[in-house]
Amino acid sequence: MKIIAVGGYEAVGRNMTGVSVGKETVALDNGIRLDTLQMYDREISMLQAKKPEYLARMDVLPRADRLKDVVAQVISHGHLDHIGGLPFNRPRAPIISTPYTVEMGKREYRGGDFSSIGYGEVSEVSSNFSVELVEVTHSIPYSSFVVLHTPEGDVVYASDFRFDNNSIIARTDYKRLRELGRGNVKALIVESTRSRVNGKTPSEALVRQELKDVMEFIDSGLIIATTFSTHIERIQSILDEVVKVGRIPLIVGRSLVKNIELARRFGLLELPSNAKLLATPKAIKAALAELGDRDKYFLLVTGHQGEPDSVLSKMTDGRFQVKLQKNDSVLFCTDIIPTPLNYATRHVLETKLKSFGVNIFEGIHVSGHASREDHRHLLKLLKPDHIIPCHGSMDMRSDYLVLAAEEGYEVNNQIHLLMNGTEIDL
Amino acid sequence: MKIIAVGGYEAVGRNMTGVSVGKETVALDNGIRLDTLQMYDREISMLQAKKPEYLARMDVLPRADRLKDVVAQVISHGHLDHIGGLPFNRPRAPIISTPYTVEMGKREYRGGDFSSIGYGEVSEVSSNFSVELVEVTHSIPYSSFVVLHTPEGDVVYASDFRFDNNSIIARTDYKRLRELGRGNVKALIVESTRSRVNGKTPSEALVRQELKDVMEFIDSGLIIATTFSTHIERIQSILDEVVKVGRIPLIVGRSLVKNIELARRFGLLELPSNAKLLATPKAIKAALAELGDRDKYFLLVTGHQGEPDSVLSKMTDGRFQVKLQKNDSVLFCTDIIPTPLNYATRHVLETKLKSFGVNIFEGIHVSGHASREDHRHLLKLLKPDHIIPCHGSMDMRSDYLVLAAEEGYEVNNQIHLLMNGTEIDL
Amino acid sequence: MKIIAVGGYEAVGRNMTGVSVGKETVALDNGIRLDTLQMYDREISMLQAKKPEYLARMDVLPRADRLKDVVAQVISHGHLDHIGGLPFNRPRAPIISTPYTVEMGKREYRGGDFSSIGYGEVSEVSSNFSVELVEVTHSIPYSSFVVLHTPEGDVVYASDFRFDNNSIIARTDYKRLRELGRGNVKALIVESTRSRVNGKTPSEALVRQELKDVMEFIDSGLIIATTFSTHIERIQSILDEVVKVGRIPLIVGRSLVKNIELARRFGLLELPSNAKLLATPKAIKAALAELGDRDKYFLLVTGHQGEPDSVLSKMTDGRFQVKLQKNDSVLFCTDIIPTPLNYATRHVLETKLKSFGVNIFEGIHVSGHASREDHRHLLKLLKPDHIIPCHGSMDMRSDYLVLAAEEGYEVNNQIHLLMNGTEIDL
Amino acid sequence: MKIIAVGGYEAVGRNMTGVSVGKETVALDNGIRLDTLQMYDREISMLQAKKPEYLARMDVLPRADRLKDVVAQVISHGHLDHIGGLPFNRPRAPIISTPYTVEMGKREYRGGDFSSIGYGEVSEVSSNFSVELVEVTHSIPYSSFVVLHTPEGDVVYASDFRFDNNSIIARTDYKRLRELGRGNVKALIVESTRSRVNGKTPSEALVRQELKDVMEFIDSGLIIATTFSTHIERIQSILDEVVKVGRIPLIVGRSLVKNIELARRFGLLELPSNAKLLATPKAIKAALAELGDRDKYFLLVTGHQGEPDSVLSKMTDGRFQVKLQKNDSVLFCTDIIPTPLNYATRHVLETKLKSFGVNIFEGIHVSGHASREDHRHLLKLLKPDHIIPCHGSMDMRSDYLVLAAEEGYEVNNQIHLLMNGTEIDL
Repeated sequence: MKIIAVGGYEAVGRNMTGVSVGKETVALDNGIRLDTLQMYDREISMLQAKKPEYLARMDVLPRADRLKDVVAQVISHGHLDHIGGLPFNRPRAPIISTPYTVEMGKREYRGGDFSSIGYGEVSEVSSNFSVELVEVTHSIPYSSFVVLHTPEGDVVYASDFRFDNNSIIARTDYKRLRELGRGNVKALIVESTRSRVNGKTPSEALVRQELKDVMEFIDSGLIIATTFSTHIERIQSILDEVVKVGRIPLIVGRSLVKNIELARRFGLLELPSNAKLLATPKAIKAALAELGDRDKYFLLVTGHQGEPDSVLSKMTDGRFQVKLQKNDSVLFCTDIIPTPLNYATRHVLETKLKSFGVNIFEGIHVSGHASREDHRHLLKLLKPDHIIPCHGSMDMRSDYLVLAAEEGYEVNNQIHLLMNGTEIDL
Repeated sequence: MKIIAVGGYEAVGRNMTGVSVGKETVALDNGIRLDTLQMYDREISMLQAKKPEYLARMDVLPRADRLKDVVAQVISHGHLDHIGGLPFNRPRAPIISTPYTVEMGKREYRGGDFSSIGYGEVSEVSSNFSVELVEVTHSIPYSSFVVLHTPEGDVVYASDFRFDNNSIIARTDYKRLRELGRGNVKALIVESTRSRVNGKTPSEALVRQELKDVMEFIDSGLIIATTFSTHIERIQSILDEVVKVGRIPLIVGRSLVKNIELARRFGLLELPSNAKLLATPKAIKAALAELGDRDKYFLLVTGHQGEPDSVLSKMTDGRFQVKLQKNDSVLFCTDIIPTPLNYATRHVLETKLKSFGVNIFEGIHVSGHASREDHRHLLKLLKPDHIIPCHGSMDMRSDYLVLAAEEGYEVNNQIHLLMNGTEIDL
Repeated sequence: MKIIAVGGYEAVGRNMTGVSVGKETVALDNGIRLDTLQMYDREISMLQAKKPEYLARMDVLPRADRLKDVVAQVISHGHLDHIGGLPFNRPRAPIISTPYTVEMGKREYRGGDFSSIGYGEVSEVSSNFSVELVEVTHSIPYSSFVVLHTPEGDVVYASDFRFDNNSIIARTDYKRLRELGRGNVKALIVESTRSRVNGKTPSEALVRQELKDVMEFIDSGLIIATTFSTHIERIQSILDEVVKVGRIPLIVGRSLVKNIELARRFGLLELPSNAKLLATPKAIKAALAELGDRDKYFLLVTGHQGEPDSVLSKMTDGRFQVKLQKNDSVLFCTDIIPTPLNYATRHVLETKLKSFGVNIFEGIHVSGHASREDHRHLLKLLKPDHIIPCHGSMDMRSDYLVLAAEEGYEVNNQIHLLMNGTEIDL
Repeated sequence: MKIIAVGGYEAVGRNMTGVSVGKETVALDNGIRLDTLQMYDREISMLQAKKPEYLARMDVLPRADRLKDVVAQVISHGHLDHIGGLPFNRPRAPIISTPYTVEMGKREYRGGDFSSIGYGEVSEVSSNFSVELVEVTHSIPYSSFVVLHTPEGDVVYASDFRFDNNSIIARTDYKRLRELGRGNVKALIVESTRSRVNGKTPSEALVRQELKDVMEFIDSGLIIATTFSTHIERIQSILDEVVKVGRIPLIVGRSLVKNIELARRFGLLELPSNAKLLATPKAIKAALAELGDRDKYFLLVTGHQGEPDSVLSKMTDGRFQVKLQKNDSVLFCTDIIPTPLNYATRHVLETKLKSFGVNIFEGIHVSGHASREDHRHLLKLLKPDHIIPCHGSMDMRSDYLVLAAEEGYEVNNQIHLLMNGTEIDL
């Protein structure tokens, strides 16, 4: 069995790993790097016209051509760093994921040969591979651990996850993980973004508590919140609290509306009856025209990282119908994704918000990624023979290595640090 | 009216402010600085023998002799940076505080002329001053805003506080604050430790949620938690969760036991029936001898900052009955009080804990101090004429100044930055 | 006498201070803030069309209309945060500075009524004011302390400076400063950007030593250096070293060429005989076409902060004639001006440079601003009655306050923290 | 050939690496970790009485017993993290180093079987190994790269070094390194402490320039400087400048005097004729009694990290003959060795110095360790087949790995990340 590090083995993002048995290879994930994409953003509108080689040179895409004889492309979940490479790399093998993630994939890559399986089902790909998806909690609905059953043992691909036993839309299938651990997990390929962080990642319940605290505290002015468009559970937490304080929720921005509609189709999100989804300039204009008494309204908008073309940034630049006023409040229900570009755009946004006298509430957020003790717990559940940390800088992956060594794994013999373009025979 | 900055106007700690009307002065708080005390800790056992001048030279004590004709010494709450100077400065005027804080004061300064008043009562000190204590939430029971009613208007001393509407042991008296605001608040003297921090300080409810999350997550090994000895609400949060997971709580350390006993006398803390309070070496030894199955026990101990003589540090040095093992867990239910010395002692502690294979959970904590929006809210409630930020470095106090300027106050005319040893006429 | 804080009293940049005696006011400096300008840079091409009120709203310009009855506008030196407001605020009073700075001013504001005086000359403005410029060292030629002689005493405006006794193009006039100190300096208005930094700011001689070390170390590949276009002494240091290692210097970029030409006219810079100044695309193209053996060439270019339209950024984006190669070297002869936007653009630049295999040498730089001990020294020289820290955030100015308090000055009585829009009577 | 990672492969310090050929092993270095030693410093006086196993448990000593059949113990240079383990591990094999380093080794471990060789000599240890020492520059005299000539090729041990072509006491033997590179360097074992740092490490010439700048700047008061006791070149730089400003140098502290005396015996240091070496309390007392006019004296003392028992700390605690005064200056001619404990002790020291009104000048220092470009240069000189980064945390070593990958080395096949207790067959 060979594990081939294609992308995500030098920096966070553009995740892609290959697993080869015999002459066949399964590709795991096919994402982009958003930070490098931003660096070249002048060309962003022309991305579609560019060849994948160009995007790989820019460190945006994984070099998918490193994988030969691909019999299946499995996708763990719908975040762009796992799925965003599809329209550029355009895999011809079947693309397998959960029904929800398949819907997200189709939005990105219309011509793909998608195939969906439910949690617990096993899909036979070839004599060498059958694929199983195991339910886990993350910050997007229908995330999976991908299990590849092979004649040489199982490979578990665990990127991305956290353990949250208070999630209201997902439930980690501990029972199945324990079963797999009692069997023969030959290799665990595992994300490492927060392997340095002590403790366990807190539950989304914490965010609900903090939202309650903040929303009850604010007694007047317009309230505006922003979060990840794909984080349906977070959006539900926010809307539930809006209902409790009796405000009218207006949801503004195309990506928010698109993801909310998908989630509703899957029964994952309950929209307050007085909520309005506003995606087109015309709808927005009409709805906001009536926004008389700001104390009665609540806006959920895009722009948590200060993206220049987001709704929130446009509001601060006067390119939007709603004018910000002193005593309005903005709630950042995300962290800053830690890149220098995000620190800059967010700084610009906050500076402009403050110039209007807006009050800022930030850090109403918990991470979607496992911390040290979550990782330790996973090792105890799965008992893999080999460990390959993925999805992280050398620092993050070597921190995972230290953790695994603490749990008795041997460096180089059992724990393997790869770099993009390298591979290992197990 | 004169406001005299005695201590807390250059760095966090050794708080003392004087308010003079006519020839009379009221002293507000009388604390020490713990970080400077640590710097000279070789002499700590000899502190009692030292003259206050010596301790003031070391920047440990406020120079209380700056205040003349003191007619009352009022204490806001029982933390050492507000009360710890009493045994050295030994005020001869009546020392006024809530009954609970008076008990804490008596422990420090046996010969003091203490006098307690309840929330809502007004105690007449002289023709110039009467004293009122208003209930607020902080991280110790029975914290107060001190209101000095004078012929020239009211002075409100707001150090320290946060707004927590989900506290189970205290309730901010918003009604009274609003009444005061409708009257004549001439000056607000207000802490500034977190005036730079956006948003509002989260509620203790968040800690309860996080404790639940972590305690349910840990399935084996000894669990050890550490927090501030005086933070009774936090201790209650911890013990409640211990009961839920069915472990036997052992509470180890003199300062913890002393404070818990005081809180129980005041009906502030409910101890689980199977809890054991262990203050003497003998009691500890006997109780821990039986500690066979570590999965059944829970230890609450001193040592959250890595203090070398705390229970937790002694455990890591092998100077204690309990040996740490791989898979034990330590929960830090505090932050690191941000001084280089604490970073060092805590680093030493964590390094040693990890050398035993102990799993660390940290940051199970919310601050006891108001953030930017809490401060803004207080200004709206009290509508003071003048503002004097106290209890903070120049950075913290000047951040408060910027906040007050945002709310329309004039720098130098209405907002005043003082330094230790300076005063201002209003 | 009144000191009016117009700009530079909340954040670094857009410096402007007024000094009023009787009914007359002298305006000191008239700069812009570059960080806020960048935040609104979509509109940058339209800046000229905007009204000053708009730019002031964006915190780019000082609100010059706060100053009434301005009899003179004095400029300390030619950096944009001191001079860049001229074309927008368009002062009608005479604009006074050194001949060199006047030349820079004319480039910005063609219609201005400029008037130059040499160091040591005194120019009578009115019965209330005469102006004198005293030579100091900074990071641009012909910087001055501005001295306003008034019937009520002297005002010294010391923004910006450092003390460098090894400068090859400027010489601080200690003798005159000492004379002023023996007289009657009523107020010192002084920059505070590095008042927190211990020690003294190192001399440019350090940079010369470090350049020698680095240039001798690099044995092959193209060498590219970037520094501030206005920092003539630094440019001379670089070119001297290029001559020593025997490479051919090409100087590329309009702002570099423009400033070098000005400096040569004033006899401040000696260009190597084989150096080429390349300002137009055509000249650049022709010169670089012959760039065969990279080991023989040296490029001095714009782009030290990663500005997207600089020569260096264009090279990394393939929008330039020279292709970067593995083993080329880039020398950053500046620091990163500490704003989130600069950290981001510089990060992008360095990421792209590394993607070509370029070796990076950074921090070949000393600051142009005074540190703590330089400031202490200035106080000893000038012995002012009053001190108003300017050109800095509240943090920087309050650090200066602490320094002045250490030297015996009284807070509020002698040291004054102002904010934009406030003033003080002395 | 086997490379065995004994110490220095998890954190900086306690360096020890084994190289085995056939049944024989050569041990390279034998150091201690100073940061962990400090953590257990209560026991420091009892260290000699402790067994090495105890010190290894504390992560202070390398586990020397991992190496069997040791035929030689070679020492690269005299710093404690390379030599300090000798008295505890007490190797019985011959201990080989330069004459200077042997003298330092004998001070630590009196009973050792020391054997010295000069640069350029080759000492045959057995049929498998002969040892050669190559001159390099570092921050202590007589540092060496250790070359082990074996039948399977050469092993070069490069820990620690920088390239400084302006050193006045050492000269890197580039010629020999180039020769080795033309031969057969099978493995390079190389320090990694600053592999993340861009550029090249600056020369000591920079410190000389900065010292000149600072010393000429200070016009009155006592001047006190502190630096590493073993950094003879730095001490010479300081004393040279003292002579130039015409002050009388008093050198105070046992470790300083001891190292200066050794350096003088080897002709490495020229002491000013009026300098006084003061090691005993009596000598110090006598010399300082006459210290009347502080402007005439200069003190070189121990205490750069704020070590509590150093001369400088004792001065701040009043446990020393010299009283500090306002306007005295302290020059820190070192950096802070980046551990939390050093940040704490140094913070305490600086706080106390400032409480006397002492002016602080810090960072008069360049590192003794190679930066990224120095490392790249070494790879070009030596062209090793295999690379094993040592002497660094996982972060530092994995940064080195990335650098080596940039230069074309294959991860896992040619670059090897080891951990303490692991080994690799080449």
